[in-house]
Amino acid sequence: MNEAMIEKIMGEVMQKMGGEGESKPSCKPAASAVAGCCGLTEYVGTATGRTIGLVIPNVDPLIHDLMKIDKKYRSIGIIGARTGAGPQIFAADEAVKATNSEVISIELARDTEGGAGHGSLILFGAADVPDARRAVEVSLKEVERTFGDVYGSPAGHLEFQYTARASGALNKAFGAPIGQSFGITVGAPAAIGVVLADVAAKAATVNAVGYSSPGNGGTSFSNEVIFTFSGDSGAVRQALIAAREVGLKLLSTMGPEEIKSTTTPYI
Amino acid sequence: MNEAMIEKIMGEVMQKMGGEGESKPSCKPAASAVAGCCGLTEYVGTATGRTIGLVIPNVDPLIHDLMKIDKKYRSIGIIGARTGAGPQIFAADEAVKATNSEVISIELARDTEGGAGHGSLILFGAADVPDARRAVEVSLKEVERTFGDVYGSPAGHLEFQYTARASGALNKAFGAPIGQSFGITVGAPAAIGVVLADVAAKAATVNAVGYSSPGNGGTSFSNEVIFTFSGDSGAVRQALIAAREVGLKLLSTMGPEEIKSTTTPYI
Amino acid sequence: MNEAMIEKIMGEVMQKMGGEGESKPSCKPAASAVAGCCGLTEYVGTATGRTIGLVIPNVDPLIHDLMKIDKKYRSIGIIGARTGAGPQIFAADEAVKATNSEVISIELARDTEGGAGHGSLILFGAADVPDARRAVEVSLKEVERTFGDVYGSPAGHLEFQYTARASGALNKAFGAPIGQSFGITVGAPAAIGVVLADVAAKAATVNAVGYSSPGNGGTSFSNEVIFTFSGDSGAVRQALIAAREVGLKLLSTMGPEEIKSTTTPYI
Repeated sequence: MNEAMIEKIMGEVMQKMGGEGESKPSCKPAASAVAGCCGLTEYVGTATGRTIGLVIPNVDPLIHDLMKIDKKYRSIGIIGARTGAGPQIFAADEAVKATNSEVISIELARDTEGGAGHGSLILFGAADVPDARRAVEVSLKEVERTFGDVYGSPAGHLEFQYTARASGALNKAFGAPIGQSFGITVGAPAAIGVVLADVAAKAATVNAVGYSSPGNGGTSFSNEVIFTFSGDSGAVRQALIAAREVGLKLLSTMGPEEIKSTTTPYI
Repeated sequence: MNEAMIEKIMGEVMQKMGGEGESKPSCKPAASAVAGCCGLTEYVGTATGRTIGLVIPNVDPLIHDLMKIDKKYRSIGIIGARTGAGPQIFAADEAVKATNSEVISIELARDTEGGAGHGSLILFGAADVPDARRAVEVSLKEVERTFGDVYGSPAGHLEFQYTARASGALNKAFGAPIGQSFGITVGAPAAIGVVLADVAAKAATVNAVGYSSPGNGGTSFSNEVIFTFSGDSGAVRQALIAAREVGLKLLSTMGPEEIKSTTTPYI
Repeated sequence: MNEAMIEKIMGEVMQKMGGEGESKPSCKPAASAVAGCCGLTEYVGTATGRTIGLVIPNVDPLIHDLMKIDKKYRSIGIIGARTGAGPQIFAADEAVKATNSEVISIELARDTEGGAGHGSLILFGAADVPDARRAVEVSLKEVERTFGDVYGSPAGHLEFQYTARASGALNKAFGAPIGQSFGITVGAPAAIGVVLADVAAKAATVNAVGYSSPGNGGTSFSNEVIFTFSGDSGAVRQALIAAREVGLKLLSTMGPEEIKSTTTPYI
């Protein structure tokens, strides 16, 4: 039996198990002024990490009350994902900067489809529908970039994120100082995350913002340690690059030896 | 290599991975007055969702204290599942109506075997053993029906449940008004659940009972939004049917296009 | 297509899915005085359960503050795992007894790679580096033994642990009385764990220490019931052996019929 056959079987298995293969969205993200596919105005698009983008033009008052969000936002944009919180939050931060919207809620599920980390639910508030939709569209596009320094293996994952200027989403999610350079290191299993935090702190002069671990808060019982920090742009990047180098070596000791970026590294 | 061979390999993989294939219980649920299989009186049977039904005729006093359950219940029935909380809770509600037992505890684990939702642990209290056993038997049977509007895909899942008359289990788990029509919508990833709640609320005049989300309570950090509501029987059903239609379209945008019921739809 | 071919495909699938196959660490645990593989002094080794052992010779003061651990420990040893908390905690208990170190933190993630249980993060504090490293090495070695009465299947898992004399790790994690015989039963799905607790309590005269369940505390929303108890050495073992016998029968009703130890039973 040749390799091609094994490939084919692997492909079928992967798809059926929902393991690695990204879902193939049945339609492309809709253009801004056009209704989504499937005849649903709510649908905007999908992205890496089983991320889906949706919009509700005019939230039902009954649900609006239950969601406990500010009454002034009639239209909400929604980014939800099975895999990832960091990539979606950093993407949403770009969306806030680029559009007339605010991030009004960020929640972390314990997910990643059997992996060690989080899924996410992010709500944007906007005064009108096109603004909410635009925020979701920008987020979906940015997610491809922010998955660039996410490295997964069967044993765990590593994540590094950087922004030159933190905005509302990063402030809400991590308490990042608005307008400053900001970075995060994530290691799973959590043991690796502890070392990443130490390496990052030693590699450059940064200001610690937070440290989250499986049982002491900041995670939804995920198997991660997350270190967040701000500071001079060069220092934040230097800390991230040092931690990434160590992280890739440590995670590869649990196999396989080569661990690839989910998309394309950007830091 | 023909399709049959691929099917065979897929079957072996599925079984080994515990992915989709339901476990094949090694014996049938025991008749009411007969000891379970394996020579264990505790065993009652299994059902869809890796659900197991058990009974303890006379709980050890040491354990009884630790469980913090009412002393008057010497016999307890147990329903536990890896996948599902809604189906088991709605099934238990039928069991309470049909037997001389009470639901004394409902706990939600973060489970579904790598999926986005919950597993469950439900305890029935009864004055004597046959009543506890009967409650478990009814629940196991009902679970096949209540999985009827559970729709799973590698990307997530949808759940819709309806009862014409809520009883003790639904009251305990969700605060459902006793004796009224009651329904729930569940969408995972949670982003889809937000839209389902909005669609249900707009489709008919219902009374909101609750809204649960990944990080704000009501879930065990599952990647779901759950909307619960009561009202006129026709209105509750109308809301559920509208949400189901939208949910199936949204979940299918994450692939695959056709998403099937776990058993047979009943709403 | 012969069995060997199916085996080969299964192997590739397993490895790619990260399902069952243990990761093959790319290097052996380093000898005590030698730097770990990959040129990283932090690396100590790996073990069953996707367990990794690490050491930080001199924790950065910034991180030390955030971790909220006692200032007197400059060097920390780290045991982290995707799968298992009990095996690692009982292993750490042996390490505390055998080395000049203390367990300063134990956290439980909701993990087991899509399974029903926990992952773990354990920190050792020591005055100097060789002590911290030695504690990690002992733990990694002991983990092979403490996985001996862990029994997994696609449907769930069982765990039984025993020590003749509890020390600091078991005291910190479970409140075990120091110096006494101590045991735990774990059953997943949680329904099975309820019966194991009852069987253990009835089988011998033991003192209950704790009872943890999915939604009422003691677990990180895992789908387990954990019963912990101390007492006379013979009684603790008798309780564990009785629970193990019942547990294997119950779990096998959810298939497959034969359920094997992860390594080699020791109780």
